[in-house]
Amino acid sequence: MTQINPHYQKLQAGYLFPEIGRRVKEFSAQNPQAKVIRLGIGDVVLPLPEAVRSAIKKATDELGDPKTFRGYGPEQGYDFLREAIAQNDFQARGAKIEADEIFVSDGSKCDCGNIQEIFSLDSRVAVVDPVYPVYVDTNVMAGRSGHYQDGRYANFVYMPATAENNFKPAFPKEKVDLIYLCSPANPTGTVLDKKDLEGWVAFAKKHEAIILFDAAYEAFITDDSLPRSIFEIPGAREVAIEFRSFSKTAGFTGTRCAFTAIPKDLFAKNEKGEKVSVHALWHRRHCTKFNGVSYPIQRGAEAVYSAQGKKEVTSLIHYYMENARLILAGLQQTGLQAFGGIHAPYVWLKTPNGMKSWDFFDLLLSKSHVVGTPGAGFGPSGEGYFRLSAFGFRENILEALSRIKNY
Amino acid sequence: MTQINPHYQKLQAGYLFPEIGRRVKEFSAQNPQAKVIRLGIGDVVLPLPEAVRSAIKKATDELGDPKTFRGYGPEQGYDFLREAIAQNDFQARGAKIEADEIFVSDGSKCDCGNIQEIFSLDSRVAVVDPVYPVYVDTNVMAGRSGHYQDGRYANFVYMPATAENNFKPAFPKEKVDLIYLCSPANPTGTVLDKKDLEGWVAFAKKHEAIILFDAAYEAFITDDSLPRSIFEIPGAREVAIEFRSFSKTAGFTGTRCAFTAIPKDLFAKNEKGEKVSVHALWHRRHCTKFNGVSYPIQRGAEAVYSAQGKKEVTSLIHYYMENARLILAGLQQTGLQAFGGIHAPYVWLKTPNGMKSWDFFDLLLSKSHVVGTPGAGFGPSGEGYFRLSAFGFRENILEALSRIKNY
Repeated sequence: MTQINPHYQKLQAGYLFPEIGRRVKEFSAQNPQAKVIRLGIGDVVLPLPEAVRSAIKKATDELGDPKTFRGYGPEQGYDFLREAIAQNDFQARGAKIEADEIFVSDGSKCDCGNIQEIFSLDSRVAVVDPVYPVYVDTNVMAGRSGHYQDGRYANFVYMPATAENNFKPAFPKEKVDLIYLCSPANPTGTVLDKKDLEGWVAFAKKHEAIILFDAAYEAFITDDSLPRSIFEIPGAREVAIEFRSFSKTAGFTGTRCAFTAIPKDLFAKNEKGEKVSVHALWHRRHCTKFNGVSYPIQRGAEAVYSAQGKKEVTSLIHYYMENARLILAGLQQTGLQAFGGIHAPYVWLKTPNGMKSWDFFDLLLSKSHVVGTPGAGFGPSGEGYFRLSAFGFRENILEALSRIKNY
Repeated sequence: MTQINPHYQKLQAGYLFPEIGRRVKEFSAQNPQAKVIRLGIGDVVLPLPEAVRSAIKKATDELGDPKTFRGYGPEQGYDFLREAIAQNDFQARGAKIEADEIFVSDGSKCDCGNIQEIFSLDSRVAVVDPVYPVYVDTNVMAGRSGHYQDGRYANFVYMPATAENNFKPAFPKEKVDLIYLCSPANPTGTVLDKKDLEGWVAFAKKHEAIILFDAAYEAFITDDSLPRSIFEIPGAREVAIEFRSFSKTAGFTGTRCAFTAIPKDLFAKNEKGEKVSVHALWHRRHCTKFNGVSYPIQRGAEAVYSAQGKKEVTSLIHYYMENARLILAGLQQTGLQAFGGIHAPYVWLKTPNGMKSWDFFDLLLSKSHVVGTPGAGFGPSGEGYFRLSAFGFRENILEALSRIKNY
């Protein structure tokens, strides 16, 4: 009988969000009158911008005319979108990234999950703890970890980020090859500043490691002096890959478009010790296993960079960041210790009296009918913390806060 | 320095279609007045059906209203689409596939390429020769092959399909675990009948192998008694996975939507020899590395099954199949031996006087200004053959045939 990939069986069965879903469903079944407010999953609620919708519809019409019909597009994305990205997201901020260093995809989850394929299975992986589970799980599936014990997989290097170190993980002491960093960070809502990133770039250079930098939340940074891209840091072109997404920025979670920037100055080595272009490897991977993003959706993404698109996106972000401000202030008023929420749409709170994060989840659900995400679900250093998302309608955020305060 | 995945360096540099592009570009530069007709890549040219476009636009409008906005959808696809697929593509033909056995994706290339991940790296892979290169390349990348020599990778089992065996590959003599089959076949344009598929299902059952069945061209089958799905064969639910796509059927090559059917009766084994559900493994893979297909595009795919959608799709298919009929008849009139083209949009011709397929490519390009695909690009048993695609405008097909006849 055909054998399965044995590493899948190391994965922990209860993925975080399905388990949350199960508990909410059970609670709602027992309390059908309770109006549950969900601030758990980081999913947007406001409409897709008008500029984006118009562009999608216009492009769809083009597909109805044999003269403007488009079949297979370039796997890496159309030039019109790659150029808009390079110019607006990188060059406009002094980060040297060219259009042909951009790979357009249907989601950052895919890119963050697939990127490890082009590296050796012997690569040592470092992740921040707590962390977005996709970095960890995809490396487990590939076979880079040992077994799971006490909330951690053997062979991975975990870098704790807690209130004690101001959510700025220390450099690993072990030799590592692939370092996953996320800033503004999911789940802690905290951000790395220029000096932090300079430190990481220098570390990666010194230890010949590659930084996999997830900047999915860069649009929520409110202080313009903070870096939005790792490529704003000199030298980063030789050590980093960056992941970006339209999901949270422009309301694309159901529309699907993202991109990855891989500089041509980034190299890894082969078995003979010769330098190999990482850009070329990912290009080969992308062309072999992917066929490009839907043409109308790429036109929609392009419209994010139009004058009207920028205006609409700014207004979406302001809305969510006002939510974040209200959550942070509201929690602090109740005496809870809370972090993040200033340059990110997540607030990370310390559970009262050292309560376990799943216990706090159950308490908040049963008493306030509010759903959040238990910190322990993001890694062992998330224990004792809890994530609230600012992606919600204002009235629900206010109602949730009022219930939490009253309780 | 971080090490690369060493298997990428086994891949052959000159991927088929880029090499074709290079030669056409060179020819056009030297002969700027030549009107080149491209019947090489299998890409559709006719407009996306009106029913599909309307549905995409309507769904895009829904995303503009907070009441009907949709964020993250289910990774496996929305129920409305999975149900339409299960009912129309399977149950209506007596194939027992349920909606929850369908996984919607953004392309068959992705699914065919990614499916191998859930199986052991020790799995022995069997492919038809000539074959769609993605099956081969993705297994090379994963490390299931040895090195490339004389047109083949060591460790893979190649099953020749040539005029000598009527393009019906013999069962492998070696023990194999994963068998890639494609019917109607790309590139030969030939089809497996019910008896052939019954033979493969019995073989897979006896030898405990899994069939990865690519039915991307099933819509082009013109004889209703031929199976369109492997699941029309009793017992196939225990041995097969099927890949389908809207690309060729409904003009979706640039719009991107496909699906994979994995029956819950399909099992592989773990290291202890225990049975493991393949459906559950793929579900885990899909949820961890993929975030679903764009909502408007899924609504567009759903519209393929509406009364108007079916009518429009039928008319697209008739158009291309009339092209195929003309190509087949035209080539036969010139005395060339040609195959396929009856239940598939590809005609597979034998090059005259045993000419090498790349030489025939150059000859046809220089003398008739017609681009096709050299058979050798699909595997060593494709040497001496040549593929012409029926995906083109009628006037171009007729013009190409007239040029070939005149030469």
